[in-house]
Amino acid sequence: MPDHTDTGSEFDIIRRHFRPLAADDAGALSLTDDAAVFDVPSGRQLVVTTDALVAGVHFLTDLSPEDIAHKVIGVNLSDLAAMGAVPRAVFLAAQFPKDTEEGWIARFAHGLADVLAGTGATLLGGDTVSTPGPLAFTVTAIGHVGAGRALTRAGAQDGDDLYVTGTIGDGALGLLCATGARPRDDALIERYARPRPRNAFAVQLAERGLATACVDISDGLAADVAHICEASGLGAQFAADRVPVSAAARDALAGDPALLRTVLTGGDDYELAFAAAPQNAAEIEALARELDLNVTNIGRFEANEAGGAGVRVLDGDGRLLDLGAGGYRHL
Amino acid sequence: MPDHTDTGSEFDIIRRHFRPLAADDAGALSLTDDAAVFDVPSGRQLVVTTDALVAGVHFLTDLSPEDIAHKVIGVNLSDLAAMGAVPRAVFLAAQFPKDTEEGWIARFAHGLADVLAGTGATLLGGDTVSTPGPLAFTVTAIGHVGAGRALTRAGAQDGDDLYVTGTIGDGALGLLCATGARPRDDALIERYARPRPRNAFAVQLAERGLATACVDISDGLAADVAHICEASGLGAQFAADRVPVSAAARDALAGDPALLRTVLTGGDDYELAFAAAPQNAAEIEALARELDLNVTNIGRFEANEAGGAGVRVLDGDGRLLDLGAGGYRHL
Repeated sequence: MPDHTDTGSEFDIIRRHFRPLAADDAGALSLTDDAAVFDVPSGRQLVVTTDALVAGVHFLTDLSPEDIAHKVIGVNLSDLAAMGAVPRAVFLAAQFPKDTEEGWIARFAHGLADVLAGTGATLLGGDTVSTPGPLAFTVTAIGHVGAGRALTRAGAQDGDDLYVTGTIGDGALGLLCATGARPRDDALIERYARPRPRNAFAVQLAERGLATACVDISDGLAADVAHICEASGLGAQFAADRVPVSAAARDALAGDPALLRTVLTGGDDYELAFAAAPQNAAEIEALARELDLNVTNIGRFEANEAGGAGVRVLDGDGRLLDLGAGGYRHL
Repeated sequence: MPDHTDTGSEFDIIRRHFRPLAADDAGALSLTDDAAVFDVPSGRQLVVTTDALVAGVHFLTDLSPEDIAHKVIGVNLSDLAAMGAVPRAVFLAAQFPKDTEEGWIARFAHGLADVLAGTGATLLGGDTVSTPGPLAFTVTAIGHVGAGRALTRAGAQDGDDLYVTGTIGDGALGLLCATGARPRDDALIERYARPRPRNAFAVQLAERGLATACVDISDGLAADVAHICEASGLGAQFAADRVPVSAAARDALAGDPALLRTVLTGGDDYELAFAAAPQNAAEIEALARELDLNVTNIGRFEANEAGGAGVRVLDGDGRLLDLGAGGYRHL
């Protein structure tokens, strides 16, 4: 980690809390050099993503330090999943307000170790600085993918099936619970606070060539499907009642059916939405079973006669649902 | 660039100002996908560094947008230079206060294009978010180096020569000028605002195996030489009157000899300090001439009988200079 900042205490914080996370990887150079040095397996392409998360803007300020570690790492690993990349390294730039207590940082570092365990990614470097502004983190995640096998948003074909992983809407409902707009539900709040990026499944999708396009669901299902549509020059339609929801979300919807819009357009799920040719259905199903992951066919991509990139969401009677402005966005 | 932030305007800002910078590199996926995908030449190791820079902490808030672009990119490319890496890509996470004008962002983007031109690095991705805090940037720079050839801080040997590139102290003196603590001097202010990372020279140092250790001078000459000493388990000594200074710095020192301490311990030079075996002197000199770069032998590394990692700075009469607390730091 670089050290052009202010005080000797940055060294101490890195040494005590972050260096142990990097201890098993020689490429980190113990976080004491100007940069990390590491190998990429030959024949693999590099996949790199950067996300900045600011307290009060991108995550609730009252989340626990452990939850925040899960959030900032999970969001970035999910971007790697969206491309089908195998995680290799994360770099963390932390902006700590001056009054941040070391105990908070220690808990955050424990959360980092926890969320990285088993992902294949190691903390290989970063930067810690103090700020007069809010707590903020920028994570850069680096992974690799077989040459030419990265899943992009472009590539979906007319007639491809539209799939999603896991359950949809828990992130947005969890945020409502966490802010008190809905009754507290710890399962939903955990889904908001701790994304579960679908890297293992996505890597297999990419390596086996099972999907034609993929995105992670961060902006909300409708908007993210629209991102595939825009990049692929297609439309899509899916049935609201085929969208998989958790038991907690089903309970919430039973009590307030208007929450369907939140489920379909809310963000923070960090599941995957992807396009796949119909002949791959059996192999996708088998892969999902193998990885014990819920994967659901909810609709299909289709040539759009109007030439636009619209996403049509249908209710149980086949009628078009109006999701309003949050339904999807156009570039 | 990811788009889990707030408004449609982020899309517009990326499209109008940042996407043109990435237009020539297919790996950027036009900044519209979840991550960038690109190749690393085979047989090369990856070198990755991340630096966060916060307005008012790491750079003066009244620098021009173009200067800030030069600063945030230059600082990171300098970390790649310290490792001897060939720059390939930069990722930029920008935190803009809500009242940031688009004209400011346009000028910043022009500065980015300007500073990246000719470096070999392309803007391949990033994130733009709004913040209630100060303007801040986190840049991740990615380069590559021949396997096993990266220059680290460890590796200097007893008897190695100590070299620096360029001139020393301009960055710290420029900061004094920019804040009004010294009379305005545009040449010095430019040296503070616009680092000139020494990538071309550093790449040759690494590929030809000419240096045993290297660091970029961000914390100040004395502190950064101490970083090599610590990592290499050595001491070092150098002569203050062999440290190369610019004409502007020489004028400042003539008027106020006490500024010598600022020159020797101030930061923000982004030159290189490196260790090399004496038998490489002629080849280093020839390389410096070839690249039209000032490279100066200012001292040597030496076994430290006390076992510490001290840096001794000598005056013209061979007496030890006391540089005070800023002279060097111990981990």
